[in-house]
Amino acid sequence: MRVLVVNPNTSDDITGVIGEVARRAAGLGTEIVVVTAPFGPRYIATRSENAIAAHATLAALAAHAPGCDGAVIAAFTDPGLFPARELLPVPVVGMAEAAMLTACLLGGRFAILTIADRLAPILREVAETYGLGSRLASVRAIEHPAIDVARDPAAAVERLAGLGRAAINEDGAEVLILGGAPLGTLDRALAERLEMPVLEGIGCAVRLAEMLVRLGARKPRAGSFSRPPAKDLVGVSAELARLFQPAPAGG
Amino acid sequence: MRVLVVNPNTSDDITGVIGEVARRAAGLGTEIVVVTAPFGPRYIATRSENAIAAHATLAALAAHAPGCDGAVIAAFTDPGLFPARELLPVPVVGMAEAAMLTACLLGGRFAILTIADRLAPILREVAETYGLGSRLASVRAIEHPAIDVARDPAAAVERLAGLGRAAINEDGAEVLILGGAPLGTLDRALAERLEMPVLEGIGCAVRLAEMLVRLGARKPRAGSFSRPPAKDLVGVSAELARLFQPAPAGG
Amino acid sequence: MRVLVVNPNTSDDITGVIGEVARRAAGLGTEIVVVTAPFGPRYIATRSENAIAAHATLAALAAHAPGCDGAVIAAFTDPGLFPARELLPVPVVGMAEAAMLTACLLGGRFAILTIADRLAPILREVAETYGLGSRLASVRAIEHPAIDVARDPAAAVERLAGLGRAAINEDGAEVLILGGAPLGTLDRALAERLEMPVLEGIGCAVRLAEMLVRLGARKPRAGSFSRPPAKDLVGVSAELARLFQPAPAGG
Amino acid sequence: MRVLVVNPNTSDDITGVIGEVARRAAGLGTEIVVVTAPFGPRYIATRSENAIAAHATLAALAAHAPGCDGAVIAAFTDPGLFPARELLPVPVVGMAEAAMLTACLLGGRFAILTIADRLAPILREVAETYGLGSRLASVRAIEHPAIDVARDPAAAVERLAGLGRAAINEDGAEVLILGGAPLGTLDRALAERLEMPVLEGIGCAVRLAEMLVRLGARKPRAGSFSRPPAKDLVGVSAELARLFQPAPAGG
Amino acid sequence: MRVLVVNPNTSDDITGVIGEVARRAAGLGTEIVVVTAPFGPRYIATRSENAIAAHATLAALAAHAPGCDGAVIAAFTDPGLFPARELLPVPVVGMAEAAMLTACLLGGRFAILTIADRLAPILREVAETYGLGSRLASVRAIEHPAIDVARDPAAAVERLAGLGRAAINEDGAEVLILGGAPLGTLDRALAERLEMPVLEGIGCAVRLAEMLVRLGARKPRAGSFSRPPAKDLVGVSAELARLFQPAPAGG
Amino acid sequence: MRVLVVNPNTSDDITGVIGEVARRAAGLGTEIVVVTAPFGPRYIATRSENAIAAHATLAALAAHAPGCDGAVIAAFTDPGLFPARELLPVPVVGMAEAAMLTACLLGGRFAILTIADRLAPILREVAETYGLGSRLASVRAIEHPAIDVARDPAAAVERLAGLGRAAINEDGAEVLILGGAPLGTLDRALAERLEMPVLEGIGCAVRLAEMLVRLGARKPRAGSFSRPPAKDLVGVSAELARLFQPAPAGG
Repeated sequence: MRVLVVNPNTSDDITGVIGEVARRAAGLGTEIVVVTAPFGPRYIATRSENAIAAHATLAALAAHAPGCDGAVIAAFTDPGLFPARELLPVPVVGMAEAAMLTACLLGGRFAILTIADRLAPILREVAETYGLGSRLASVRAIEHPAIDVARDPAAAVERLAGLGRAAINEDGAEVLILGGAPLGTLDRALAERLEMPVLEGIGCAVRLAEMLVRLGARKPRAGSFSRPPAKDLVGVSAELARLFQPAPAGG
Repeated sequence: MRVLVVNPNTSDDITGVIGEVARRAAGLGTEIVVVTAPFGPRYIATRSENAIAAHATLAALAAHAPGCDGAVIAAFTDPGLFPARELLPVPVVGMAEAAMLTACLLGGRFAILTIADRLAPILREVAETYGLGSRLASVRAIEHPAIDVARDPAAAVERLAGLGRAAINEDGAEVLILGGAPLGTLDRALAERLEMPVLEGIGCAVRLAEMLVRLGARKPRAGSFSRPPAKDLVGVSAELARLFQPAPAGG
Repeated sequence: MRVLVVNPNTSDDITGVIGEVARRAAGLGTEIVVVTAPFGPRYIATRSENAIAAHATLAALAAHAPGCDGAVIAAFTDPGLFPARELLPVPVVGMAEAAMLTACLLGGRFAILTIADRLAPILREVAETYGLGSRLASVRAIEHPAIDVARDPAAAVERLAGLGRAAINEDGAEVLILGGAPLGTLDRALAERLEMPVLEGIGCAVRLAEMLVRLGARKPRAGSFSRPPAKDLVGVSAELARLFQPAPAGG
Repeated sequence: MRVLVVNPNTSDDITGVIGEVARRAAGLGTEIVVVTAPFGPRYIATRSENAIAAHATLAALAAHAPGCDGAVIAAFTDPGLFPARELLPVPVVGMAEAAMLTACLLGGRFAILTIADRLAPILREVAETYGLGSRLASVRAIEHPAIDVARDPAAAVERLAGLGRAAINEDGAEVLILGGAPLGTLDRALAERLEMPVLEGIGCAVRLAEMLVRLGARKPRAGSFSRPPAKDLVGVSAELARLFQPAPAGG
Repeated sequence: MRVLVVNPNTSDDITGVIGEVARRAAGLGTEIVVVTAPFGPRYIATRSENAIAAHATLAALAAHAPGCDGAVIAAFTDPGLFPARELLPVPVVGMAEAAMLTACLLGGRFAILTIADRLAPILREVAETYGLGSRLASVRAIEHPAIDVARDPAAAVERLAGLGRAAINEDGAEVLILGGAPLGTLDRALAERLEMPVLEGIGCAVRLAEMLVRLGARKPRAGSFSRPPAKDLVGVSAELARLFQPAPAGG
Repeated sequence: MRVLVVNPNTSDDITGVIGEVARRAAGLGTEIVVVTAPFGPRYIATRSENAIAAHATLAALAAHAPGCDGAVIAAFTDPGLFPARELLPVPVVGMAEAAMLTACLLGGRFAILTIADRLAPILREVAETYGLGSRLASVRAIEHPAIDVARDPAAAVERLAGLGRAAINEDGAEVLILGGAPLGTLDRALAERLEMPVLEGIGCAVRLAEMLVRLGARKPRAGSFSRPPAKDLVGVSAELARLFQPAPAGG
């Protein structure tokens, strides 16, 4: 099968990390196609950047999803996730959603470790959007200056271990989630260090997308996740506008 | 004061209704400036349309907010509301948020009457995003074909009255909210008909925006609603990109 | 318009502060009438004092609301608020409710800073009564001896700033609310100090009462906020008993 | 032991029913003292009546609790319950609270059957105040004209049975609670009719008060249920004012 | 009346403590019968031990409940409580449930003090199962090595007092609950030390069981707590299997 | 990999259906081992049967999990799930949990269609245990006599379609879950009939177990899901008792 992985950030170096992590997770016979958002912020860390990235993610999906069996959104705020799930005929999984649902299969409450203070309330809201607020133990963020994963991964693991220990001992976390695509390569080192389950969302999302593709659940014909009725959109990419046009064959 | 009202839909006829309702509500000395979203759907009724409209709303605010003292987002899904609140130096109010908070001042639980079945779960999620899920009695939607407010307002009130009575008698609603900009002119007729408080959101939002402008609360310097740090955005409007650039003078 | 502001405490010096803060907030053309509760505690700080004050507030409203267009209850426990809203034909707003709903328009979660430890659980219950528990970050109280706002406002701001910083950094608060009428004059100084939005409830309540008066929403004819049916009450003030008598003209 | 039962309504005939039900429930060696509220409404059915009754209940407790080992508040809105619990040195139990907590010991979710439509949202709020909202299946009310329990108890049981069946079959109720002092004598007949547990609150409250007296838990010295610090109250009954004066011996 | 108290642990010394505490609480005329679980762990401290103990508790109840008027489950995880309530014709009360519901009658939020870190999330889940999550202030556990109540009760009280003070001052607890049968004899000493209400669950459960027996509520004929329909069970004790056989006379 | 699937019921014909459904779902290279609970009820439909089955499931897992890479519990009440997750070194997934988490990836709120009225409150509690109460639209049960899936699958689909339509139209369900192992073969037929996503839990659980095995998350060394410390258990199967003995090599 072919799984499209969209980087909602416009940074090609993050796209590189995402591709690496996604391919490491993909099963035999899964082809990973990674694309970068066509517009928007370099790296999403605020509400307004996330809103712009949601549109950009839909545009990327519209351009690249045809021919793919499923899709993954690879920013930890899951920009455009529910809209994409409505719009596309194939399964779409977000990396935050995937990590949180996987955490539910491994322990009681989970904590999110992330890299910007101001993301904490946003990520709490994301968890609550999924109805998972009661399973979120805490969001803990590294104070600036942010860790530099690429240059000094050992130091990054060190700092995350401190956050993680606090989440376990003070907040009652039983699973830890790395809240940000750039942290995606540190899960195993941190798990060994803390002797606790540590999840990064891109790998979880790829695996859950594969699972959904194999499951083959029917696209709903009714409700808020059914395909939008035909409508004219102005000023958006041709591929995106086309998804709102009447389908020649149903879907 | 000057209050910008953004129509997140790209329909000029809806912009006309919005302007009429907003001006009816504005206080003495308030100038209402109404603008239409620069791109996106004609009328938002799905999740993906709403996501695109959120970006379009930010673009409209970026272009027109300078010189305004406050802003209102006039689609009942409040597209881009929290992002706009983060991004702009002036108060921003959403029409759904405004109607729900005003309803909290008038009764116990409120019901939303809207015009598309598939909006119901989305509007429930909007209420929950604001932490107001426990005050939402129900969302009730007119089955298609939708009512035509412009051509036959009396018939529209008739149908809304049926929905409203069910919300009061079966769901325990004590305040009714009209969930859609096109319904904005029907609040008084429906209130008389049902002898109950009926709110439309645009007027509530204009009044709350005026109230916030007069209040003059400080823009936060920290947290998820403080101004985003400087960042390069690609492929967005020049005005929108400029909001992510370093400010010459603080704000 | 004329807005009645009731001090549910029986201290005239608090009535003085309340009047000052209310008039500072009132719009052009709004006349503020301030009255003191006819019986009850000097300053409400416990559950039983609050219950007595609720009755006293209803008595004050019954005596003074005729001729007024709206009313405000100016103690941070909002004594008698929902009962008053049911009983009176005009809008009634509580200062805690007003501050909390206004905070919802400015940020994600709010913290309440107050002046007595034992008020903290009570104020949390007040927030939950309004369905706003999920937006309450924390209640933090100054340990006794309480601050003396009148004699040394600078010291009071200093101590509140410490509380506020803890609420922001440890509890995730994005808006601060001053939880007590005597703190009402310190909002601006504290906002400057912390560079964060700081709300005091009396001003918010006056502004929201004005907004509701202008909105002119219909008094409900059904539900728990409609006018009580005629009933004899014994041992209460004549004005209060009269509100439970049949109305000559509807209301 | 001696248990004081306060009728927060000012109707002596309701006091009679309350006394009968309370004495039926009391254990060997328990003396029941029943008193009527000194002021307020004949029968509480609205928010404002309930607020006045809360004060009246505190006044009745202040006058009659000395010499008693525990107290019960016998109106289904539990007027003044938490305030009384704070103010008195002996345990105080409310009839709604007692019925709801007892229901938790017998099944999953409970329904409240009551006699006025407009009480339904108020009783839901009461349940939520106790943190029991998730165990409340529904509140169902007999439409007016209200049932006349005294004249035709068989007809009253008949109508309640209809409500109860709906609560069981449509709302998932597993225990039924009679929500009003006048219904207190119908519990057994309704239980036999429906073959389900049916609770009336006065008997539950008397039994729980006895249980708390025997338990002898310590009055807290801190928190919102500790005794209020000394304070002058004006315009309240001498007995009530005395409860806010310094105690000769601690308590 | 006769009340069966089941020790779900297989330690006879804990059975001894349970019997002592239960008899101390029992009213005049109540005979306490204490039995030890027929199989399972010495002392329940994990999820899997608790699951095995639930079955063992049902087996003990099946063997010993005939001839008893009510039953108590005396481990703080309440193993098998809801199942036993469904299966038996007489009232069954769990010690954690009893302590939590009693705490609701005494204050706002309660804290649980327990003796193993890994019990904390489990006890939080127990509280949430009863719908009481919002009244749970915190669970605080003594770090290992566990306290030795039998050998040095004064030291145990000392350590619990430290936990309790933290729960009161930092978590807002207004009532303290001792979360474990072995702590059952320390409630009074701790209450005196902290001058706060302190509850142990076995005594609360015995008293509530007595109260339910006297109340005589009807066993439901429908819903999830009615008697299971006849069914063959294999490999369980004869007494337990018999409870799933058709009853000669209803029940 | 090898995945153990435990039938917590003691009916071999249900084991047959479970094996069929599990093998249909398993990926290439996955060996499915199906075992029947060693004791307990033929078919779990009550709380007490479920408690006994939880122990039986642990016994089955203890006997058969060695040599397996993951395990699935195949009754819709997920008996023993969290205990098993604590006790075993390999991932364990429950069929209800798996269906609910998968439903979260496909739509907003899900409904459960099941075959016994008295299961409805139990399944609601299961959803709440997982923190997913807010995503549960409803549980709808076929009234007795139960459907006979094996003899007349078409009639069973017919009746489930009626339930499903009601869940979609009246309860707002966007995904349907078949709540019972015997319904496991009807998912596709029902999905075609309703044109909506329909999930059965065994297949979801097998796929999620495969996903977790491939993910290889670390077993926690702390918290309530870490391995229980060594302890003597009496009267349980030798294999089960051995899981509570000190491990020769860590795990």
